[in-house]
Amino acid sequence: MKLSIEQKNLIAGVNIAARAVPAKTTMSILKCILIDASTEKIRLIGNDTDLGIETVVEGTIAEHGVIAVDADIFSNIVRKLPDGTVNITVEGEKVTIQCEQARFVILGRDGTDFVYLPEIDRSYGIEISQFTLRDIIARTIFSLSTNESSRMMTGELFEIRDNQLRVVALDGHRISIRHVDLKNSYPDKKVIIPGKTLTEISKILSGDMEKTANLYFTDKHALFTFDSTTVASRLIEGEYFKIDQMISNDFQTHVNINRQELLSCLDRATLLVKEEDKKPIILLIRDDQVEMKINSTIGSLDEVIAITKEGADLNIGFNPKFLIDALRAIDDERVDIYLLSSRAPAFIRDDHSYCYLILPVNFIDADL
Amino acid sequence: MKLSIEQKNLIAGVNIAARAVPAKTTMSILKCILIDASTEKIRLIGNDTDLGIETVVEGTIAEHGVIAVDADIFSNIVRKLPDGTVNITVEGEKVTIQCEQARFVILGRDGTDFVYLPEIDRSYGIEISQFTLRDIIARTIFSLSTNESSRMMTGELFEIRDNQLRVVALDGHRISIRHVDLKNSYPDKKVIIPGKTLTEISKILSGDMEKTANLYFTDKHALFTFDSTTVASRLIEGEYFKIDQMISNDFQTHVNINRQELLSCLDRATLLVKEEDKKPIILLIRDDQVEMKINSTIGSLDEVIAITKEGADLNIGFNPKFLIDALRAIDDERVDIYLLSSRAPAFIRDDHSYCYLILPVNFIDADL
Repeated sequence: MKLSIEQKNLIAGVNIAARAVPAKTTMSILKCILIDASTEKIRLIGNDTDLGIETVVEGTIAEHGVIAVDADIFSNIVRKLPDGTVNITVEGEKVTIQCEQARFVILGRDGTDFVYLPEIDRSYGIEISQFTLRDIIARTIFSLSTNESSRMMTGELFEIRDNQLRVVALDGHRISIRHVDLKNSYPDKKVIIPGKTLTEISKILSGDMEKTANLYFTDKHALFTFDSTTVASRLIEGEYFKIDQMISNDFQTHVNINRQELLSCLDRATLLVKEEDKKPIILLIRDDQVEMKINSTIGSLDEVIAITKEGADLNIGFNPKFLIDALRAIDDERVDIYLLSSRAPAFIRDDHSYCYLILPVNFIDADL
Repeated sequence: MKLSIEQKNLIAGVNIAARAVPAKTTMSILKCILIDASTEKIRLIGNDTDLGIETVVEGTIAEHGVIAVDADIFSNIVRKLPDGTVNITVEGEKVTIQCEQARFVILGRDGTDFVYLPEIDRSYGIEISQFTLRDIIARTIFSLSTNESSRMMTGELFEIRDNQLRVVALDGHRISIRHVDLKNSYPDKKVIIPGKTLTEISKILSGDMEKTANLYFTDKHALFTFDSTTVASRLIEGEYFKIDQMISNDFQTHVNINRQELLSCLDRATLLVKEEDKKPIILLIRDDQVEMKINSTIGSLDEVIAITKEGADLNIGFNPKFLIDALRAIDDERVDIYLLSSRAPAFIRDDHSYCYLILPVNFIDADL
């Protein structure tokens, strides 16, 4: 095999394919990136068997071939090469990587054990801008559970109805929901995409409004295609939680508050929260102000923020981290919070695009 | 005690004093910063008993007093306060820190156990620009040993002769030497300042050419005064290594090489060096080029760099890290390397300001 690729194209491609290379695996071939120049294209492939990423890099093929190279070593080498044309020559398993005056030699492996991306049926697909896809992932994914024992909570629901995409993430303490309009209408579809897949895709997607991504879904797989890249992922199978039963529009208290002021106060409050003694922040909601109080073994904080309110006064406690996560996922200058009682979930929502549900935390008078 | 201090002044002062607060200690009072407003000045003091830092912050004192506060908690709180006037009120051990609408309460400790900075005689002192002091520390300190068993190697020699300051750091594999001219002449003096002291001072010194620092030395202590800050440090006692006997101007081979090209090549070579099998980089020095070779279990690198040379051809091996450290401490576009044999130390030096000595590493033909 003999290839020539510009260093900056090669490093961009390697960075994409390497996102699917697992940090730990018992199958050593999966620690490799496959360089496949058996056709007229140079394809770089990484695959941990749950998630596979293939990207095409520009370059010239003087001699066809396939080789697997250790992803860490190869990407480190490519990253440190000078900015110029990289020539990759393979003889047997000896891989020579030459650029300007530098010549590296490493051992590769033949690609016969390597697992290519699965063939995925493209009969159901939607189109979305890369910017929007990256954006809705970022504004929901923090709510996923990292606990593999509740596997359904480690993936996001993507639900398509007509020209609407609803994305849902939850972890048992909170639910994050985002709606976006699609350009076209599609038949109804619900899939649960693993959080890891979405995290890795977010890092590859461009933030470009004009560029689109195509998403294809079967019962078991999702396929994402954008730019020169194809991502194949297993889906989480099973019935998702009944979200609509958890959402309510009832409220007794409606608070309108400056988002940044609330965030800054919560940020200060987290100073006083130690992992071991999780103290809630307590909101004493009155007519034109909310008094925020936290009281821990480290010390206490007391702060007052102006609000506009309709409905009843209320005292309610929260894990400050959950409020912070939701407020950071919102851009609005002011937010609306809807509350029913000190035991019922709080909703931070607008009319059309987002709804963040957060369960309150019980508190005792000593916390005040 | 009642104080008012602008948040940005307070955080700057806390950041300085906290540099002397030890990460680990059995004396819990040392984890504190002392706020001493017993006089007309507000002084913040941190002290791990080897290194003490005192800084004066601007502010108003409505009621005199002294209190010790946990350095971590206090600095985290101050950092997160809004930009405004911070009011600190102490009643007994209850410390109230109020700024805008936020009011923190933490427990302090009375300052009676706290160790103040030692009184240090100022009869021997030198003056140096803060920029220069920070600069010579940065260009030598990487050569210190971190191994406390060779205590003398954990400190830098500061040697004053007339209007010359020579700073030396060494670790058994290399020696880094910097000379600077002082504005005035002083009696001869040699002191060994702990590396930790110099590291912390570097982080506080401004990079301003116009601002000066005063250094005072006794047999056991060094005192640094600059801006509103005073740093007191123990010295390392004993006789320093006989540096002048280690330095030689003899050479058989003199190489002049582009510093950045050499650095880039060495940087690539480190990719192939694993902690466990430390492979040297071998320089094959010929008339108008040096061929650089490294050969490890990961792979091999071969690269050629143009040089000008006088004297004999030479093959010599080095730990690439030591060459990299020295080359990064130099600004010149090209550097001169003087070599005697493959077993003798190499010198990277100029006429007046620096000399970096690096011991070579033995290599076998199989490394080529």
